Amino acid sequence: MAAKYVIGIDLGGTNLKIAVLDFRVKIRRKLILSTRSFKKKEELIRALCLGIREIVRQSGLTKADIRAVGIGLPGPVDVEKGLVHFFPNIPGFKEVCLRGILRKRLGLGIFLDNDANLMCLAEHRFGAAKGSRNAFCITLGTGVGGGLIINGSLYRARSFAAGEIGHLPLNENGPRCNCGGIACLEAYIGNNRIRSQAKKVFGHSITLEELSLLAKRGNKKALRVWKVIGRHLGVALSSIVNVLSPDIIVIGGGVADAGRALFKETRRTVAARAMPVQSRHVKISPALLGQDAGLIGAGIIAWQGN
Amino acid sequence: MAAKYVIGIDLGGTNLKIAVLDFRVKIRRKLILSTRSFKKKEELIRALCLGIREIVRQSGLTKADIRAVGIGLPGPVDVEKGLVHFFPNIPGFKEVCLRGILRKRLGLGIFLDNDANLMCLAEHRFGAAKGSRNAFCITLGTGVGGGLIINGSLYRARSFAAGEIGHLPLNENGPRCNCGGIACLEAYIGNNRIRSQAKKVFGHSITLEELSLLAKRGNKKALRVWKVIGRHLGVALSSIVNVLSPDIIVIGGGVADAGRALFKETRRTVAARAMPVQSRHVKISPALLGQDAGLIGAGIIAWQGN
Repeated sequence: MAAKYVIGIDLGGTNLKIAVLDFRVKIRRKLILSTRSFKKKEELIRALCLGIREIVRQSGLTKADIRAVGIGLPGPVDVEKGLVHFFPNIPGFKEVCLRGILRKRLGLGIFLDNDANLMCLAEHRFGAAKGSRNAFCITLGTGVGGGLIINGSLYRARSFAAGEIGHLPLNENGPRCNCGGIACLEAYIGNNRIRSQAKKVFGHSITLEELSLLAKRGNKKALRVWKVIGRHLGVALSSIVNVLSPDIIVIGGGVADAGRALFKETRRTVAARAMPVQSRHVKISPALLGQDAGLIGAGIIAWQGN
Repeated sequence: MAAKYVIGIDLGGTNLKIAVLDFRVKIRRKLILSTRSFKKKEELIRALCLGIREIVRQSGLTKADIRAVGIGLPGPVDVEKGLVHFFPNIPGFKEVCLRGILRKRLGLGIFLDNDANLMCLAEHRFGAAKGSRNAFCITLGTGVGGGLIINGSLYRARSFAAGEIGHLPLNENGPRCNCGGIACLEAYIGNNRIRSQAKKVFGHSITLEELSLLAKRGNKKALRVWKVIGRHLGVALSSIVNVLSPDIIVIGGGVADAGRALFKETRRTVAARAMPVQSRHVKISPALLGQDAGLIGAGIIAWQGN
């Protein structure tokens, strides 16, 4: 009998999520671990293997029920070779053939891709970008990632590294970025940057959840922080709109929860700065699949391959 | 007997070029007029019609020998409707159905597209981007345009306005651009801007041809001007490299003749600022078809349609 389930994994700088998904790519069971508790490459790989075995067992399944494993990773990967180039926010991985290692230990088919690509694939199949021909998806978090749908398919480029809007230079001069670049968008709107901006404005530390909540309640200081973030994002998206002219831009990731305050200023900036012809054609929408987009995208590649 | 020739037209802010091209898209005869001598829309349209009839006559051909007319235009067009939205550097055209007007007057099939798209099409078919899967072509001139080849085909997007790298914001704040945007690349490296930069450095007016020639002879002031231009261009191309990860970036247009000085600084900037994975994959090359690229691209769409 053919396997009826797949495993989806979403590895982030903060959480490692593992799920069992069915043939409709619906999540049937989910396991969330803290990525930070794994200090070394080997520890993280072992956690992946244990986690997969555990969730299969918890679901009352056996290995024979699992068709393949799809994994979303927070950094550039070579999809064809199954190779991780590096993770900007997780140490210890440099040119690691993760697919080879996991295939050997688990005896299962392994597909991997960048997490932003998988979010994009999921939002295009089931979410906000459903039915669109050309879409740009951006994920806001510790890192800022992006994925591109061109003519209805995920566009990866020969480097498998397309879509890195987090490393679009927002200015010619500015802060140095983790990637080696200068004045990258991520250095302006990454979570750490938002927190430090908020600390300046409020005079004390504040979580992003609080900052979003305060903005929803109309707190002026919180609104001011989100407005600045929305403007930075809007300038970067003006580049995307003028160069790629997508039908839709989907914004997801934790920070997208800031909601109206962030979207309003982002849309306003794009309308003011992008060229009218392209700007008329683009919709800027929140992601619909929320925190599960990465897992669903991982499920999609586990079913269909890369 | 089937028509064996097409007409290619390249309308720029400075020159109006008309050519007869054969079935191999080789230019057989060329006519160059000054765009600036036509002050009104109707004058320019009449010049187009007269020019076409004239070059057909000069070539010893008749209308029956002409399969169709392809036209490259310096602004956003709706390829499907044959509509010119506007020309940033030629007044009098706003939502003009140029295809309809010319088809009626000439009784020939008319295809039109943005000039940068046609340059890109030509460089991909016959020039520097030949054989590449994903390519970005940029034309430097009074305006700065761009075209995109994705998965081997010209990518136009639903707005037909993709590729507008000239209007990629290079900074969050900066000079206002003709397009309505702020700090667009064109405002930093358009011909007018280069001339005014050169005037500052040299203390007197200087043509772009002189500036290129002086740089080739090692003149330090000229090299300094091109270095600044190359750096601006390199920052903008770092965005393209990180987001699209093309196999090749082709640089054409008059200013590309500045040669080594411009290319060296552009490549150095991309190598320093773009992400290593994408940067390793990209070649930055001068266009091979020179001033004729637009005419050849117009010939291609005249033969194959848009």
